[in-house]
Amino acid sequence: MQRYFVKNIQINNNLVTILDLDHHHITKVMRMQINDRVEVCDEAENLYLCRIVNISKKDVGLEIVDKISSNTELNANITIALGLTRTSKIEEVVKRITELGASSFIPIEMNRSVVRILKDQNLKLDRLKLIVKEAAEQSKRTKLMEVYEPIKFKDLLKQIDNFDYLIYAYEEAGKTNNNQMKNMVKKFKNKNVLILVGPEGGFSLEEVNELNEHGFVAVGLGPRILRLETAPLYIMSIISYELEINL
Amino acid sequence: MQRYFVKNIQINNNLVTILDLDHHHITKVMRMQINDRVEVCDEAENLYLCRIVNISKKDVGLEIVDKISSNTELNANITIALGLTRTSKIEEVVKRITELGASSFIPIEMNRSVVRILKDQNLKLDRLKLIVKEAAEQSKRTKLMEVYEPIKFKDLLKQIDNFDYLIYAYEEAGKTNNNQMKNMVKKFKNKNVLILVGPEGGFSLEEVNELNEHGFVAVGLGPRILRLETAPLYIMSIISYELEINL
Repeated sequence: MQRYFVKNIQINNNLVTILDLDHHHITKVMRMQINDRVEVCDEAENLYLCRIVNISKKDVGLEIVDKISSNTELNANITIALGLTRTSKIEEVVKRITELGASSFIPIEMNRSVVRILKDQNLKLDRLKLIVKEAAEQSKRTKLMEVYEPIKFKDLLKQIDNFDYLIYAYEEAGKTNNNQMKNMVKKFKNKNVLILVGPEGGFSLEEVNELNEHGFVAVGLGPRILRLETAPLYIMSIISYELEINL
Repeated sequence: MQRYFVKNIQINNNLVTILDLDHHHITKVMRMQINDRVEVCDEAENLYLCRIVNISKKDVGLEIVDKISSNTELNANITIALGLTRTSKIEEVVKRITELGASSFIPIEMNRSVVRILKDQNLKLDRLKLIVKEAAEQSKRTKLMEVYEPIKFKDLLKQIDNFDYLIYAYEEAGKTNNNQMKNMVKKFKNKNVLILVGPEGGFSLEEVNELNEHGFVAVGLGPRILRLETAPLYIMSIISYELEINL
């Protein structure tokens, strides 16, 4: 069933008002009619089964029929920090890690980033949020992944007290099989985890030293060199596998 | 270091001749000079360190300096069969699963495929092979993933004797937590494994019945609904995680 995320102010008692892009989606894309059913998710992760009771040119009115219990959220708060790169690659990563259950995404300007904040960065936060919303609706999440404006590497280091685990994906760790990932992933349940994936050129030696000094653990993602678009997906997949797939 | 896959006929004693797109890449993209070094991988997965000894308008001559040992290939033969869909999505999957170590890829026309073989399918095998070659070079593989022309679902069922394990990714299995993936993945070492991911609309009931009759095992990939572009990456990531990342 089609799912839509709404703001709490769109809900009034047992009535929900759908506006703008979602109104367009219901009326023009899905061509739904009165009495058709949709799911609605509010900002507190409540999920409702709703029935269309009114369609006008500006809004769609829904009546809440039932509250649904859902358990599709990953039981770990994973923040993916990604070396700032071209917008198309960031959008691709944002879409996929939303599907895979990440909690937050933040682009980081690093020494070897091919794109610089302000200078040539044209990342639109509104567009990223729309990508997150659509991916969350499609993948049946009940929570929207947070996306943040790009920050500099040194500013990321100031925020690390918010996290229980600090990790960076480092290809040298993958080559030497000096791998801590398996040990760590099992401990992520209900924890706040920050995972940093470097830009195309990788981490500079200076950055590696700073990460190590700040308590980040280097992990490898196997013997092949993964592109920066692939590495976050590998990480989110294995976290889901360890925490969500039971024997 | 830059890596290039070559045909065996390009190697004559300790000399390698580089032509066409790779010639262009070395001379125009990388702007390499005499004495610069590259890696070359032949059809038997031999990897050589080479030195540029000659550059002309048509070819680049390399001298083999050393044989390199490499261990970047996944120790399981994984064939990803994907419900036939739009070419851009197939190209995306082919690129990513090459990085992640898959052995073969084959698109399958299924009941709910939005694209049909012959009618509106414009998949170019040459273009897919080029994507595989570039992704394999970049990810430091020594073997090229095989890509095949699309076939019909019933023709896939005729080929299953070639495989030790038959699996299909089924979202209903993910919802109910009836999950066999963890049990199975550990057994994939040195085995031939066929993994089928359905098209956008999922499997038809008829297809599910046929798969079950032919001995395919349904596996879930967690509680969220993954897009068909994401599911093969999830699968390849967890296979790499189980077989390649040691404690």
